Amino acid sequence: MEINFKEIVENDRLLKQINFIIELDKLKSIFRQSYLSHSKRHENDAEHSWHIAVMAILLAEHSSVLNKDPDLLKVVKMLLIHDIVEIDAGDTYCYDEIGNAHKEQRELKAAARIFNILPEDQSQELFDLWQEFEQQVTPEAVFAASLDRIQPIILNFLSAGKSWKEHDITPDMILKRNSIIEKGSPALWNMVKNILKIFFNR
Amino acid sequence: MEINFKEIVENDRLLKQINFIIELDKLKSIFRQSYLSHSKRHENDAEHSWHIAVMAILLAEHSSVLNKDPDLLKVVKMLLIHDIVEIDAGDTYCYDEIGNAHKEQRELKAAARIFNILPEDQSQELFDLWQEFEQQVTPEAVFAASLDRIQPIILNFLSAGKSWKEHDITPDMILKRNSIIEKGSPALWNMVKNILKIFFNR
Repeated sequence: MEINFKEIVENDRLLKQINFIIELDKLKSIFRQSYLSHSKRHENDAEHSWHIAVMAILLAEHSSVLNKDPDLLKVVKMLLIHDIVEIDAGDTYCYDEIGNAHKEQRELKAAARIFNILPEDQSQELFDLWQEFEQQVTPEAVFAASLDRIQPIILNFLSAGKSWKEHDITPDMILKRNSIIEKGSPALWNMVKNILKIFFNR
Repeated sequence: MEINFKEIVENDRLLKQINFIIELDKLKSIFRQSYLSHSKRHENDAEHSWHIAVMAILLAEHSSVLNKDPDLLKVVKMLLIHDIVEIDAGDTYCYDEIGNAHKEQRELKAAARIFNILPEDQSQELFDLWQEFEQQVTPEAVFAASLDRIQPIILNFLSAGKSWKEHDITPDMILKRNSIIEKGSPALWNMVKNILKIFFNR
C-alpha cells in the first residue's frame, strides 16, 4: 500500500529522513553478479554494503594509506552508502566496459533524486561522501574502494568462480580492474594474487 | 568447495580475520519475520543490520540519550555486529516469549564460537560491543536498540502488517515489547504510536 507518512511524522525534517529510510529498502532488491558462498543466489547491494562495512572495522590495520588514527567512521559511512545510487542506476558489473562508460551519468542522476529526499545538509553530506568514494583519492576512499573490490573476489573464489566463468573473466582482467586494492592494502593485494594463482592455476 | 585460506593468507592474524569475514556470509541467509516493503520475501539479518546502521547516521540527532558529541562509530559498530550470533542461534521473533526465554543461553554459546574465530583483541571488542548492546544501559546501546526495534515496525506498516497479522500481534504487545524506543528517542516513539493508531484504528 502507498502510505503518506505526513500523518505519522509531524516534524518536517524527520519526515524527510523517514522517507529516505523507506526508499533505502529498495537496495535489498538490487542484485549483483556475485553469488553467496553458501547459496545459489546472487548477493544484493544491502548485504554487500553491510559485509564490507564490517570488513572495514576489522581490516583497517592492514591499510597502507590510512594514517595511524584513521577516520574509521568516514570509511564505514562511505561503504554503507556507496551503492545507494544503484536503486535507480542498477548494478554495473565491474568488468562490463560498455556499462561502465555510461555509469557516471546514470549514477549522478540517481544521486540527485535519491539523496535529495533527505534534508539539505544530510543530502549534501551523503552526496559528498559518495563522490569522495568514487574519486578514490583520499586515504579513506582508497581503502574503502579496496574493500568494495576484494569482497566479490573472495565470494567468487568461495563459489568456485561461478560468476567469473559465466562472464569469461580472465586473471588479467581481475588484476587490471581491481588494482586499487594494491594502493589500499598490499597485504590484501597479496591475497588476491594468491587466489588467482590457485584458481587459475598459474 | 571447502577452501583452506592458509595457502592464500600467510599472516596468521589476517587469516583469522578472513575466516571470520567468510563466516559472516552466512548472516545473509538468516531470515527474520519482517517482510520487505516492495517484495513478498522476508528480510535477512545482513540487510536489516545495514538498514539500521544507515538509520543511526541519519537519526542520531533525534536521540534523547546520546550526548551532543556522540560516539556514532560505536553505535554503528554495535548495529553492524548485533545479529552475528544468529548465524548459530537463529532469529528469535521479538514477540516469541518462549523463544526469548532461552535466547540468552543460545546466543552466548554462538558468540563464544563465532567471535573467537577472530584474533583475541578483536574477538573481545566485538563480544563487549554485543554485550553492551544487549544490556541496553549505555546511551549508545539504548539508541542502537531503539533503531533495531523501530525498523521492523516501519517495514510491518509498509507491508500492510503482514507479519503482525500472521502472528496475531496486538498494539499492546507492540508497545510493551518496544518501549526501549521511548527511552532512545521520544520523536521516534511518537511515530510508533501514530503508526499503531492508524494501523489498528484506535
